[in-house]
Amino acid sequence: MKDIYSHIETHVDESIAQLFEMVRQPSISAQKRGFDKAPGLMKQILERNGFKAEIVPVPNDGLPSVYGFMPAAQNPDAAPTLLFYCHYDVQPVDPLDLWDTDPFEPTRVGDRLYGRGMSDDKGNIGARLAAIRAFVDERGAVPCNIKMFCEGEEESGSVNLPGLIAERGDDFRADACIWEGGGRNLNNDPFMYLGLKGVLGVGLSVRMLSGDAHSSYAAILPSAAWRLLRAIETIKDEDERIHIDGFYDDIVEPSAEAVAAVEALPDDAPEWLETFGVTSFVKGLDGEDLRKQLIFQPTANIAGLDSGYQDEGMKTVLPAVASAKMDFRLVPEQRPHDIYDKLRAHLDSHGFSDVEVELIAAVNPYRTDLDSPWVQLVAETAEEIYGRKPVMTPNMAGTGPMFDFGNTLGMPIATSGIDHPSHRIHAPNENITVEDFLLGAKHAALIIDRFASDWG
Amino acid sequence: MKDIYSHIETHVDESIAQLFEMVRQPSISAQKRGFDKAPGLMKQILERNGFKAEIVPVPNDGLPSVYGFMPAAQNPDAAPTLLFYCHYDVQPVDPLDLWDTDPFEPTRVGDRLYGRGMSDDKGNIGARLAAIRAFVDERGAVPCNIKMFCEGEEESGSVNLPGLIAERGDDFRADACIWEGGGRNLNNDPFMYLGLKGVLGVGLSVRMLSGDAHSSYAAILPSAAWRLLRAIETIKDEDERIHIDGFYDDIVEPSAEAVAAVEALPDDAPEWLETFGVTSFVKGLDGEDLRKQLIFQPTANIAGLDSGYQDEGMKTVLPAVASAKMDFRLVPEQRPHDIYDKLRAHLDSHGFSDVEVELIAAVNPYRTDLDSPWVQLVAETAEEIYGRKPVMTPNMAGTGPMFDFGNTLGMPIATSGIDHPSHRIHAPNENITVEDFLLGAKHAALIIDRFASDWG
Repeated sequence: MKDIYSHIETHVDESIAQLFEMVRQPSISAQKRGFDKAPGLMKQILERNGFKAEIVPVPNDGLPSVYGFMPAAQNPDAAPTLLFYCHYDVQPVDPLDLWDTDPFEPTRVGDRLYGRGMSDDKGNIGARLAAIRAFVDERGAVPCNIKMFCEGEEESGSVNLPGLIAERGDDFRADACIWEGGGRNLNNDPFMYLGLKGVLGVGLSVRMLSGDAHSSYAAILPSAAWRLLRAIETIKDEDERIHIDGFYDDIVEPSAEAVAAVEALPDDAPEWLETFGVTSFVKGLDGEDLRKQLIFQPTANIAGLDSGYQDEGMKTVLPAVASAKMDFRLVPEQRPHDIYDKLRAHLDSHGFSDVEVELIAAVNPYRTDLDSPWVQLVAETAEEIYGRKPVMTPNMAGTGPMFDFGNTLGMPIATSGIDHPSHRIHAPNENITVEDFLLGAKHAALIIDRFASDWG
Repeated sequence: MKDIYSHIETHVDESIAQLFEMVRQPSISAQKRGFDKAPGLMKQILERNGFKAEIVPVPNDGLPSVYGFMPAAQNPDAAPTLLFYCHYDVQPVDPLDLWDTDPFEPTRVGDRLYGRGMSDDKGNIGARLAAIRAFVDERGAVPCNIKMFCEGEEESGSVNLPGLIAERGDDFRADACIWEGGGRNLNNDPFMYLGLKGVLGVGLSVRMLSGDAHSSYAAILPSAAWRLLRAIETIKDEDERIHIDGFYDDIVEPSAEAVAAVEALPDDAPEWLETFGVTSFVKGLDGEDLRKQLIFQPTANIAGLDSGYQDEGMKTVLPAVASAKMDFRLVPEQRPHDIYDKLRAHLDSHGFSDVEVELIAAVNPYRTDLDSPWVQLVAETAEEIYGRKPVMTPNMAGTGPMFDFGNTLGMPIATSGIDHPSHRIHAPNENITVEDFLLGAKHAALIIDRFASDWG
């Protein structure tokens, strides 16, 4: 593999330039921003690296995926096929005033590269392409069939992915799949995760007046803000217990292996305390209990509140409308549409039929078996690249559409990537280090090589 | 008075042009917008109409007032002095997309004139200047001394007015005062109000994290949005009872005359239902009880809620900060600084010491005696102009710094103005009709004439 690793290192400036090209193009799926050009650029970059690429329409006029195929050097019909799942969409950039640089003007400061999507997930796309490019340049071709699936709606909940998989999932089927994410943790140990939480994302809103009123009328007119606040307040108590009837019914207890893996994880609590500037966690949790809460428990999060006047000073207004965004992280085998129905029923039964609930995002949770051979291959190659055994997480606290590939298409999934907790994904000043990029590219290359020989 | 009324009518186009000149100049005190030019323009307009005018600095580097003096035609040292209280600042204009015209590009559509401040309160300034100009042009001078006090911070709570009155209140003292407001109600009956509620305006905010986190961490990190919501929820119950300890202690029961006046007011409930698009009022109130609630009861209003992501789609964020704007309308003899202290103590005693409370606005409530001779003069002249006896309201549900003039400077206060409920003050598409403008100008003129003779 020396030729491949050497190529990755000597071509790092070109790889960074290509990553910057991707980051410079906005692609905020929540706001549909930049999608006049982003899919075309993604297709062009796949083609430039040797893929046969296409822009894939998704159901409901959703934001398209971009798909690329590259055949194995020899006998592609018999060669095994590896799928890389990535996404080229990014999170919104607000609050913009907390960025030190323009989020869409990629900026290098020392070893660190700043910009929206630099880590999540354009950094992964770039690292994987660097690995693939090394095979093409050094050996003329890749040793196995490679499929790159780059989703355009991951950051807004992959709402149309289940429909796309139902329509033409066979095109994306492979013998094994590398997911986005993976990389190094705070101790610089390599980590892998084998599952993801699901999510139900909703917009709650209530209108009490036909238009905003002068706040002197607050003495006699109903208030949308008070009403929304009282409705939300019924959903969760101060001990983090969610009071939607049946919310916990379908949760499957994690396996003994999964629990043991979580118990064996390093204690990141001190770093979290520092990163987030807090002195304690919910319910005073720490140690294994804290990790189990993070990994195995569902959530009811308020992601946004919006009503009336929010600028400086005072506007004495009684707002006509109040709204909130909430996301519920779900664990196996909760289902987002079922939780949506239960939330609606909960609000109705508590007298809040006037609170409208818009379904914005729905993703099923998924968890892979720890003892799959594919997981073992990815773990072993990680140890070779990083020099340490990887830390295994049964599932991440975050969400992605792993279910559609792992469950619906039935392929084994493991992770490898360029992540590090210092990358500030989803936040201002998102970044990646050149070191993380190179490690991720080399791990991708070694996985391709080992997969081609072991699965052949 | 025929010469005066005729002058007001024949010069209405000039008066409207002058009003448009004022409206075209933004002067949003809450956002300090337009105050590089607005005070100078206000001074220039007073001077143009014959006043000796000055820009009056206020304490704490607040937005200045503009003050004008015009002496009586004969023997000004012995002549009585009339003060017109007005304000040249306006409310913010958001939500801008609900305006049919640019709020700062005055637009006439038939008999109706649109723009921010067109009614509240630049319309009153314009109508009063039209009356004064008529005396100057037709008779060479006004028959009494006239003071015009134009405040620059009324719409953001007159925070610096008590300080200014303490510093140089004597300059603004007069024998009687006409307040802003007054005009016609929904039945087109003239109305007067003799008092105003006070207000405590506060910003509540709580920070739980040093920065926004990915919402997957909602399983273990404390949430600012949930915490703010739970703090606010303790302030008022669903029966509109405010649970701040001692909140109701200093409320003085209204006099029998005040109660009788409210009972005699017309029933505006059907119009309110239509205007605000509601089917009922708080606690199912109607009739006299509804009016008593509006006029005599204090409020706890949520004027704004702000946290996290509020745009389209989903951003899976755990917001670091959540904030709210609240205004508490106060009735005699509640005091805003006392209520502020009680709110702070309430939050502390309920375990919410981490919720910060910023005092934004503090105005004392004030209520004039119904049987004052000055009130009688203004009521009689209103009947002459409008052809009907005015409806008397002991106090408005709204707020203004009447206390500082009526109580601190000890002058009798009544109202006369250009108001009508269709003017949409504080809301998009604020407007005034030419008819309301002319009636207000004529009433101001007759008050000046009668005051000069009766108080002379």
